Amino acid sequence: MRAKVETQDMRTIQIYDTTLRDGTQGEGVSLSLEDKLQIAARLDEIGIDFIEGGYPLSNPKDAEFFQRVRAMKFKTAKVCAFGMTRRKGVIAADDPGMKALVESHAPICTIVGKTSDFHVTEVLRVTLEENLAMIHDSIAYLVSQGREVFYDAEHFFDGSAANSDYALKTITTAAKAGAKMVILCDTNGGTMPEQIAERTRWAREALEPLGVQVGIHCHNDCELAVANSLSAVDAGAAQVQGTINGVGERCGNADLISVMANLGLKKKGYSILGGRGLTHLTELSRFVYETANLNMRSGQPFVGQSAFAHKGGMHVHAITRATSSYEHLDPELVGNERRILVSELSGRSNIAALTAKHNVSDDRELMDRILKQVVDLEASGWQFEAAGASFDLLVRRATGNFNSHFDRLKYHVGVSAANQGEPVTEASVKLNIRGQERYEVAEGDGPVNALDAALRKALAVEYPTLRDVQLIDYKVRVVNGQQGTAARIRVIIESADQHDVWGTVGVSENIIEASWLALVDAIEYKLCKDGVA
Amino acid sequence: MRAKVETQDMRTIQIYDTTLRDGTQGEGVSLSLEDKLQIAARLDEIGIDFIEGGYPLSNPKDAEFFQRVRAMKFKTAKVCAFGMTRRKGVIAADDPGMKALVESHAPICTIVGKTSDFHVTEVLRVTLEENLAMIHDSIAYLVSQGREVFYDAEHFFDGSAANSDYALKTITTAAKAGAKMVILCDTNGGTMPEQIAERTRWAREALEPLGVQVGIHCHNDCELAVANSLSAVDAGAAQVQGTINGVGERCGNADLISVMANLGLKKKGYSILGGRGLTHLTELSRFVYETANLNMRSGQPFVGQSAFAHKGGMHVHAITRATSSYEHLDPELVGNERRILVSELSGRSNIAALTAKHNVSDDRELMDRILKQVVDLEASGWQFEAAGASFDLLVRRATGNFNSHFDRLKYHVGVSAANQGEPVTEASVKLNIRGQERYEVAEGDGPVNALDAALRKALAVEYPTLRDVQLIDYKVRVVNGQQGTAARIRVIIESADQHDVWGTVGVSENIIEASWLALVDAIEYKLCKDGVA
Repeated sequence: MRAKVETQDMRTIQIYDTTLRDGTQGEGVSLSLEDKLQIAARLDEIGIDFIEGGYPLSNPKDAEFFQRVRAMKFKTAKVCAFGMTRRKGVIAADDPGMKALVESHAPICTIVGKTSDFHVTEVLRVTLEENLAMIHDSIAYLVSQGREVFYDAEHFFDGSAANSDYALKTITTAAKAGAKMVILCDTNGGTMPEQIAERTRWAREALEPLGVQVGIHCHNDCELAVANSLSAVDAGAAQVQGTINGVGERCGNADLISVMANLGLKKKGYSILGGRGLTHLTELSRFVYETANLNMRSGQPFVGQSAFAHKGGMHVHAITRATSSYEHLDPELVGNERRILVSELSGRSNIAALTAKHNVSDDRELMDRILKQVVDLEASGWQFEAAGASFDLLVRRATGNFNSHFDRLKYHVGVSAANQGEPVTEASVKLNIRGQERYEVAEGDGPVNALDAALRKALAVEYPTLRDVQLIDYKVRVVNGQQGTAARIRVIIESADQHDVWGTVGVSENIIEASWLALVDAIEYKLCKDGVA
Repeated sequence: MRAKVETQDMRTIQIYDTTLRDGTQGEGVSLSLEDKLQIAARLDEIGIDFIEGGYPLSNPKDAEFFQRVRAMKFKTAKVCAFGMTRRKGVIAADDPGMKALVESHAPICTIVGKTSDFHVTEVLRVTLEENLAMIHDSIAYLVSQGREVFYDAEHFFDGSAANSDYALKTITTAAKAGAKMVILCDTNGGTMPEQIAERTRWAREALEPLGVQVGIHCHNDCELAVANSLSAVDAGAAQVQGTINGVGERCGNADLISVMANLGLKKKGYSILGGRGLTHLTELSRFVYETANLNMRSGQPFVGQSAFAHKGGMHVHAITRATSSYEHLDPELVGNERRILVSELSGRSNIAALTAKHNVSDDRELMDRILKQVVDLEASGWQFEAAGASFDLLVRRATGNFNSHFDRLKYHVGVSAANQGEPVTEASVKLNIRGQERYEVAEGDGPVNALDAALRKALAVEYPTLRDVQLIDYKVRVVNGQQGTAARIRVIIESADQHDVWGTVGVSENIIEASWLALVDAIEYKLCKDGVA
């Protein structure tokens, strides 16, 4: 049981993340099973209360998620499986969706049901009574199987505006059937904050006598998902559902990053995440972008790269007199940092922080030289945020503290395919290793794999510890996508040995060359790290 | 004079655009003089009331803007020049900023002044009395020169929270000096909607007896700029300032796209843009992105490409029964369109909606076969959301309605680099084209570029329209990043001719093969589209 910081004046608000389920409904969002498990672990680390892992009936990947996640030890988070009310005309125990929920072994089942009479009769095409029975039976059955049930009242705001009597019946049915929480969903994202407040208050007053709390689930179709979530909390909602970075169908879900920052740092009277700080919010946001291979939004509130960036001269001047003059919040509270654009001053302190371990921070001329190099490289597509090992090598080179362990004489990569056959890939490398020439060739599943194999074949005789290195991740991004296939390509490689994981980067118009640069850095970093002269 | 649609129950809200001034404070936003003039013309076309063109003192480009814009005939928009209150210790007529405003010949001058005592004494470093004199003198001088003056009360919300007496003095001073409107600025973007409402009401009640209205100017640092703008309007603000697409410093300004859509289409009781419709909103948003060379946000409310995109099978099924089921608004009202996406989350309904043009939707067995193929392909890393042309070819193949225009006999791609030199890339392809063999070779900036060049060299003799095709975007994604360089690679290519843009996809362990598959689909789709047998 985690410590509660709630005082008499503080209301605890539960944070319910559905990045792994509703988030993947977003266009261009797709997560592998491994991605989902990694994100779940990160969500738990910052103290999220509930993680909705998927919809086990809908696909085997989600079903497998629930098996795999059981082996993980979470500090705070409880795992929730998503499903719908049973189909019409069957008993709950025979419904495939109910079975999938039970078999998921998730301690909490979140099921969605219809609130709007229009949806019941025109879309689902069942009677109003049958819909109530479907809600009741599904919840009662899952409760009888020992699960906690959260009930998502779909289209609650539109439905209750059109027929408030029927809407009320659906949610009180859910409460009486044993739901622990009724979540009011603005499914279409079209409701205004004042309507959210009024209807949330109305639902809360109806459910309170039944001992059931309300939660809120908003979509961003009117750019109001965060405001609507806060409005519902002010009106008494005890749980906010949303996704990291607001990913999700159409315009996305309420962005939990902004919701948490507003509840935890801006508004008074609310306690979230068991009182933990939010200093890992920026890291979490970027991890999810990277894992889903989505581009960050530089202007994203709280965590974007530009969120605390100052460009206007008057503002920068004021910031140097008092940071609060043009900042509503200390960026460190959300793990972000202030950036002064087109100014060496702020940059030097970043570089100083990053080079601390090299004991060169008091060399201002060197700091400036490194900063200039980073600025120039970033302008042509490089990025060191996920490539700390390449940055480390850059610093070593700048300080004259680096001798390469080998030089390239040449490489060649060839890929051929005939008729409908599989492609065949071969790479050869000729290297000068401490004055000795080695020329090796290898095959691979693709050009990078073959190049890696040939490189290590050539080097491992002289440097045997390279045999311990594994490439664990490989990411490719077109840096400027508007020039077709001749655009610049950034490759980021993650490597690991028994002790460490390190990232390296390469950029070129040619993907093979970009991969080569990242591979070479990965090897050089390993040898430096091992103290190989 | 434009027609007013205001009735007794409708309040007119003025829309004030500052894309050309505050918008360009955003990181990565820069507009040429021609860009600014073109955007101004578009803003006028949709009926924006006020266009803030720039800050004539700050740079010659802005000064020139005001000279050039005078020659343009606007239907509705009035041009505003931005400046600050006079410097300390000078008379207004001698202040360079005041002179620049007068020389701009803009009919309206918007000047910003300090509301917060902290900013007055600690940042500006003048006495509280001198600041009031600066506000008074600047406004009175510009009024004496025949200009209408809008007064931007900087840091109004923070300032009035800290010292409400002094804040009140600054805005009543502005009103008494002749300002036509006092705009309450949440400069740091840190204020919550309920505080905005309360303080706006307070300011309005103070200024109403002086015959002066209040406006609102919000920033998005808490993801609340749109909600805050609406909150102020509900509390009596008569003007909303913002930018198109919310561009602007840090997290940006209030997005006028969402503000206008919410005021004009969602909330009751407000009249904007003289009652004109908002059917050009999507076009305006995209024009500004294109002109500023910024990437669109696909999930942007109302106008994003995904704003009315449906992926989940249940939702698509419902949409076909009633579009309002998962849409809060008819997309045509904002000039946007509905899109149905294909993915493993789709059901037969998505497939049926997408294959409508092939006239096969009533063949359920075929629908199921196509759906199964999509599900299987997605499980091994394919994705058709951004590759509609590949999906189209998949349907053609499934219906037996496709004959390939060429067959691969072989290809070879070679990349070599020597010493520190640039890599050299060559690709050769041998194809069977309608029984004839062609064998061609080409160089390129990288393997995909070379392969594309060789393919088209081989095919263009037989299929000359392929010369019109351009590759406009190339995206690479490692589908399962946990197996190092042997992971599967998904390539998505966007191609265009004079008429259309189309996306294709290829997946393989080998990036070259994946690119080949996407390139071949791009070519086949073009030939099908052109009706080449």
